[in-house]
Formats: sequence, C-alpha cells, structure tokens
Amino acid sequence: MSAQNPQSLDQFLIQCQKRVEYSLEKTLSRSIPSNKLKKAMRYACLDGGKRIRPVLVYASAQAVDASMNDADMAACAVELIHSYSLVHDDLPAMDDDDLRRGKPSVHKAFNEATAILVGDALQALAFQCLAEQNNALSAETKLLMTTMLAEAAGAFGMTAGQTLDLEASGTRVELNELETLHRLKTGSLIKASVRMGALCNPQCSEAQLCALEQYADNIGLAFQVQDDILDEIGDTDTLGKPQGSDRAQTKPTYVSLLGLGNAKTKAAELANNAILAIEGISTSANSLRDLANYIVNRIH
Amino acid sequence: MSAQNPQSLDQFLIQCQKRVEYSLEKTLSRSIPSNKLKKAMRYACLDGGKRIRPVLVYASAQAVDASMNDADMAACAVELIHSYSLVHDDLPAMDDDDLRRGKPSVHKAFNEATAILVGDALQALAFQCLAEQNNALSAETKLLMTTMLAEAAGAFGMTAGQTLDLEASGTRVELNELETLHRLKTGSLIKASVRMGALCNPQCSEAQLCALEQYADNIGLAFQVQDDILDEIGDTDTLGKPQGSDRAQTKPTYVSLLGLGNAKTKAAELANNAILAIEGISTSANSLRDLANYIVNRIH
Repeated sequence: MSAQNPQSLDQFLIQCQKRVEYSLEKTLSRSIPSNKLKKAMRYACLDGGKRIRPVLVYASAQAVDASMNDADMAACAVELIHSYSLVHDDLPAMDDDDLRRGKPSVHKAFNEATAILVGDALQALAFQCLAEQNNALSAETKLLMTTMLAEAAGAFGMTAGQTLDLEASGTRVELNELETLHRLKTGSLIKASVRMGALCNPQCSEAQLCALEQYADNIGLAFQVQDDILDEIGDTDTLGKPQGSDRAQTKPTYVSLLGLGNAKTKAAELANNAILAIEGISTSANSLRDLANYIVNRIH
Repeated sequence: MSAQNPQSLDQFLIQCQKRVEYSLEKTLSRSIPSNKLKKAMRYACLDGGKRIRPVLVYASAQAVDASMNDADMAACAVELIHSYSLVHDDLPAMDDDDLRRGKPSVHKAFNEATAILVGDALQALAFQCLAEQNNALSAETKLLMTTMLAEAAGAFGMTAGQTLDLEASGTRVELNELETLHRLKTGSLIKASVRMGALCNPQCSEAQLCALEQYADNIGLAFQVQDDILDEIGDTDTLGKPQGSDRAQTKPTYVSLLGLGNAKTKAAELANNAILAIEGISTSANSLRDLANYIVNRIH
C-alpha cells in the first residue's frame, strides 16, 4: 500500500468494505438476550450500504501511515452510528421512508417499537466498540475517539442537523441555512470519521490533522450535494429508496435552491477543494483523493 | 461523612440531587445548534425525577471512600441514559404514556420526531460526559465506565429488557421470565450505577466490588417490584403517571403474578439481601443501606 504501488480505488473500497463487514458481523454475532432485537439489529446493519464512513476512517488512517488494524473499531463504530441514524430517520414520525438499501425499512420489516429500540441499541454498541477496542491505541486515544463520535452523533452534530432538517421541511430556507443543516446532519459524522482515522497514528501532526479536517469539511458537503442531485436524477432501483422522495416531502435541497447545473458545479468544486486541502500531507493520500472524486461521481 | 458522624438519608439524598442537578444543568446549558432540540432535552432532564441512579453512584463511591467529585460525571451520565430511556419508552409506538413526572411526556409537549431525537441526543451526551470528564480518574477507568454504561444501556441490557417487555405485554409469562426481563430493563442500569461509583476508587478491592454487585442485583429487582406495587396501589398524582397503567396494558407484573401481599414480602426480602451483601465491606456504607430500605418503602 505504498505510494510506489498504489491500489486502485476499487481494490481499496473492497478491502475496506470486507474489513468493516467482518467487524460488524463479529460485533453483531455476540449473544443478545432478545432474539428479535438481535435479528433486527443485524437486518439494519449487515449486507448493505456503501460503507463510505468506514472507508474514510481507513483512508485517513492510511494517509497518516497508521495501521489498518487500529482503525477497525473506529470504522465499525461510525457505521453503527450511521446505521442507527438511518433506522430512526426512516420512522413514520421522521422521514417516513418505507424502503432503505432496496429493502423494507426496519419499522416495516419489524415494527416501529423495534425500530426505535434497534437504533438505540446500535448507538450504545458504537460507543461500546470504541471503549472496548483491543489494539495498540492508548486509552487516551480511545477516549478522544469516544468524545469525537459522541459530539458528532449527538446534539452538537447529527441529531441537531436532523432536527433542523425536519423544521426546514416545507419552508423556504436560504443557502447558508441549508449548508449549516447539512454540515451538522451529514458533515459532522463524515468529519469525525476522517479525524478518528487520523487519531490511529498518535504521531499525526497538527498540520496533517488540520488538512484532513478541511478535506472532511469539503467532502461532507460534496456528499450531500451529490445526494440531492441523485434524489433528483437517480432512479428508485439504483438508489434503493424512492427517487424524488426529498422533493415529494418539499424538503429544501441544493438542486431546488441552485438548480441542477449549479449543484453539479458546486459538488465538483467541493471535491476539488478537498483534494487541494490534502496536497502534500503525505505520500499515502491516494485513496482520500480518489474518494473525493468518487463521492461526487457516484450514481447511488 | 465518616461512620462516626453519619448523615441522615434525607441529607444525603438532597446533597446528591443537588450535585447531579448542577451537572445536568451545566451539561445542558452548552450551546446546541437547534434551540428546539436544546429546549426539549432540558425539558426531558431537568427539574424532575428522584435521581435514584445518580444517588446510587454517589453512595457506592462513598462506600469505597472515593471522592464525590470523581463521581459527578458518572452520576450525570447514568441520569442522561435514564432520561433518554423514559422519553423513548413513553412514545406512542412503545408504552404510549402521555404523562411523565407529572408533566406531559416529551412527545406530547413537543412532537414525536423531537422526542425520538431528544432520546438519541441524550444517549450520545451521556457517553460524551464520561469520555470528557475532567477529574482524577485515569483514562483506563473512564474507558471502563464507558464500556459498563454502554453494555448496560444497549442490547446486552436495558434495550433488550425493553424489547422483552413489549413482547411480554398481553402474554402469560412465568416469574423467572419476568425476573430476567426486569434484570435487563431496570437492573442493568442500576447495577452499572453501583459499579461506576465503585470505580471512582481505583483501589476498590475485588471483594468490595463483588459485594456491591450483589447489593445492586438485589436492589435493582427490589426497585422494580416496588414499582409494580406502586402501579397497583399508588395514585396518579403521587406517581406522576396514570395509576394502573401497567395493568391497563395487561403487562405482567410482580403483583399480577404473586399477588400484592407476596410482592410486598418479596420487595422486603430483596432489600434485606442487599443490606446483607454489603455487611462489613466498609465503614461508609450507611447510605447504601438506607437506600435499600428507602427503595422498598418509597411511595412514588
């Protein structure tokens, strides 16, 4: 995995997805006192999703020459948080989505109460994974990861973003409000993923961390702009959720505010800014660079 | 607070409640990007509740001669988890309770989506409090507390108990199944509270820890038996929730399985076992002893 013999992005994605799949499978095969809860947690997490956040943890760890082993539990934890947020977002009282990753959402496949409890249990499990991780990282680093993830997932990040998103539905919002909303709702967990990856090398310099954070800010937003574009132009089969569902809920999107052409330009600019931010930070940042392009060119 | 000059339980309760009120107020006065979310989180947590779990953290810390300062964030974290669980338990898809602590439940005072998000945010905040705590405890101890709380709150504890509880509703369960359910739903967080208190003294002996865990097992169950008794005999005003609400939902309870008289005997026995378990562990276990009696004699 040296700069002399760079992996293709496809190889890297497959490698990371395998690693996180393994960790999730192992974590979710532990004995849980309710079979129903266990089955529903596994349904919510396994066999699906692009695993973008874990991939970012690994790519960031790679960029600072950290060991992939030390990044495994951070990668698993961010995916558990992401999975829980999808289960709760899909609930009837929230976005009311019946389809997720091409399958019935958890509250449709099981029931609403189970979906609420699955989300709650996955969140707790994410923090348990970070606190229990058995690797070369110091206790201080593990605690720092826990703080980062809790801050990104809760009232200072994702959950606040989701609250603002629900409030914005059906109202006219300005571009800067939409940006704040998405920096919280999507951006904070993406940023935490990149930061946690960097923490896997305790010798990571302040300059590297700063560059990685700028990278994360840009791709976090790029990711959301591309999501809005896909909601407008993608088809239901490819997306795994109903195409146009945001528009149908009259949610403000980058496409509705900027128009499709300008939204595409913005996504490309953000990806470019992300790549510029990490220029020269290390000889192992190929995957991060490729990921920035992948994020704005993906079709689902 | 020495054994020569023991505090009354009332004084101890007031002292602990003040401490945890202060920590919760401080934690929930931080800047949160959504005013609505912040308001609803504060509504869910402040000015209410007996704070039994934080009191147990403090009493356990006191029993092993640990500093109350070092117990503050553990006490705050268990109460945040407890508060989140109440908010989610009250949701229409769960127990559908409109009243909590004498006020409209969060989903009635705000709305369902906000209640889901409030619970999610409070859970994240609990782990953030543990990871960020700035005191004399080592990073290893803080991590151990985080693991304990995550395990107790999630799929291996409380959340599994709540799943089993919902499944049991309207069915005939045996006494041992009811006990398993409550050991998970209520007992695991109570046990974590006692264990986290003990961790505040890193020199706490294995024998002390073992005695405290036995204590916690017994009072955890005693607490639930008394809850079932109060649901049968208490009145709505004193309880802060509709009297007979468990019976109305045809939930199995200790009273429905054992009868009122036997349930009262069982509660008293459990409290007694708890007190026996900690006999001789230290000269500072008065509060724990008094609490065991308080738990089975409380009227709300």
